[in-house]
Amino acid sequence: MVIAIDMMGGDFAPLEAVKGVLQYHQEEKSPAELLLIGHQPAIHELLTGHKVPQDLFRIIHAEQVIGMHEHPTKALKEKQQSSIAIGFHLLASGKADAFISAGNTGAMLVGTLFSIKALEGVIRPTISTIIPKENGCTGLLLDVGLNADCKPEQLNQFAVMGSVYAQLILGIDNPKVGLINVGEEEGKGNILAQATYSLLKENTHIRFIGNIEGRDILIDKADVMVCEGFTGNILLKFAESLYEVSHRKQIKDGYFERFNFENYGGTPILGVAKPVVIGHGISKSKAFKNMILVAQKMLEKDVLGKMKEELQ
Amino acid sequence: MVIAIDMMGGDFAPLEAVKGVLQYHQEEKSPAELLLIGHQPAIHELLTGHKVPQDLFRIIHAEQVIGMHEHPTKALKEKQQSSIAIGFHLLASGKADAFISAGNTGAMLVGTLFSIKALEGVIRPTISTIIPKENGCTGLLLDVGLNADCKPEQLNQFAVMGSVYAQLILGIDNPKVGLINVGEEEGKGNILAQATYSLLKENTHIRFIGNIEGRDILIDKADVMVCEGFTGNILLKFAESLYEVSHRKQIKDGYFERFNFENYGGTPILGVAKPVVIGHGISKSKAFKNMILVAQKMLEKDVLGKMKEELQ
Repeated sequence: MVIAIDMMGGDFAPLEAVKGVLQYHQEEKSPAELLLIGHQPAIHELLTGHKVPQDLFRIIHAEQVIGMHEHPTKALKEKQQSSIAIGFHLLASGKADAFISAGNTGAMLVGTLFSIKALEGVIRPTISTIIPKENGCTGLLLDVGLNADCKPEQLNQFAVMGSVYAQLILGIDNPKVGLINVGEEEGKGNILAQATYSLLKENTHIRFIGNIEGRDILIDKADVMVCEGFTGNILLKFAESLYEVSHRKQIKDGYFERFNFENYGGTPILGVAKPVVIGHGISKSKAFKNMILVAQKMLEKDVLGKMKEELQ
Repeated sequence: MVIAIDMMGGDFAPLEAVKGVLQYHQEEKSPAELLLIGHQPAIHELLTGHKVPQDLFRIIHAEQVIGMHEHPTKALKEKQQSSIAIGFHLLASGKADAFISAGNTGAMLVGTLFSIKALEGVIRPTISTIIPKENGCTGLLLDVGLNADCKPEQLNQFAVMGSVYAQLILGIDNPKVGLINVGEEEGKGNILAQATYSLLKENTHIRFIGNIEGRDILIDKADVMVCEGFTGNILLKFAESLYEVSHRKQIKDGYFERFNFENYGGTPILGVAKPVVIGHGISKSKAFKNMILVAQKMLEKDVLGKMKEELQ
């Protein structure tokens, strides 16, 4: 199992990436083989500074870096020697089994969609986020921005992929799937939600519990919460801002602390043939470590194989 | 100026409605004439209990009540003697200038759409909500559920109506209008948001500041926040749940207290020819008082006339 890591992505790279890699390696009993992609001398120096044996990791030199605000398509095309471009090359050529980065999100999405095949039968891949539930549990919200316009069939697939992820990675048995909507009753909602309801209701691969409303997002009603990427992205960013608000207001409550998404291990792109995990730009060592763990778990539990099976 | 009030609407009616009416009457220097619609003996008894002179208010007897969970269209059709049906009759026949109720929201919407004309040129009326901003100010979010599917032209009108309301009722000078979207740059978003952006940009009746994201909802970026009713409704209900969460978590912060929407004076239906204000089912006296104040202010400042003018 080989996991490639973009050491240059994120606001605090490569230092925090190196620290994350070391934490992962120290804490994990049977760590995966890691390929560290980035500026060789810089990474080498950081590793030496941490007294890491020379041969513990393989460093793949990348001469270039795609900046956080560069135009994704343009940057990927022009910077073939960037850590992100090299990462996708390793993944596509089979030299790596998974790829993680906290760099330019757009470039990661474009790179994935253009270099990694979609899972058989998947209309469009999706990205999700974890939602901290008030009772201490964790929910999954998807799509959170990859697909601003969706068809009912896509939402139906998000429900299946989200269920598999919730079960195998979040450890939620038989996860409850809710359709985010403006009312509880069947027949409520916009045209998309109405049509999606019918599909979800008949989908035997999921445990559909019906519509959920905005007030249900934070409570233990549905584990997997499905919507198109427009609503999902706005909800995600609104939820993220709660952490910031609670900090500015000096509200010391453990619950709002959990809206600090940099603690989570990034979000995988679901529906593509290999694990790609995208981290927050503000990722610190813990986030890097968690991203590697997510990729490892996805490989170990064959999450993608299971998704393919359930999507049949 | 005559304002009709449904005394039977809401979970705590008619007691809290009576208390709200009295508070309004005691605090307001030049109160509007109020028509109290509801079960005459019950209201009379409550007024007498509060030692209110017999002739201070006119009570319009309503034999029936539409329950909070009745089917709106069916209930309005079958219960012609209900307080809501009578309210709309008074409004449509010119015997009242405004109508407020904390009763069945669906029945209020259906009643409005069927008995009160839309303002000239308005494609579809809309409903909004107040959003407490972190800095102590107040924003306006619309549509919050009346129009789950929208055309760009509708969102463009929401921006105008919201701006007039923010200026005249919320007291925000030259309000900043933001389009709720998944990214800041022009060209971002779903098909609807992209098309709406072009219209808002060229609309000289508003002060358009561009796209705003989920993280901007609570901060002082835009005063009037525009989206279709699907996203808006989910955002509203999510925001409402923050008050409940903070209470359950015993977070004593004044900011989250402001998400207790029962304190606000209900939400007017914008885009119809006469003020109709809908309150929360859980409205208490303060909310009833505030609803009457909103209706009064809308009449005094000729909010609807100004909307009509700006929509030309």
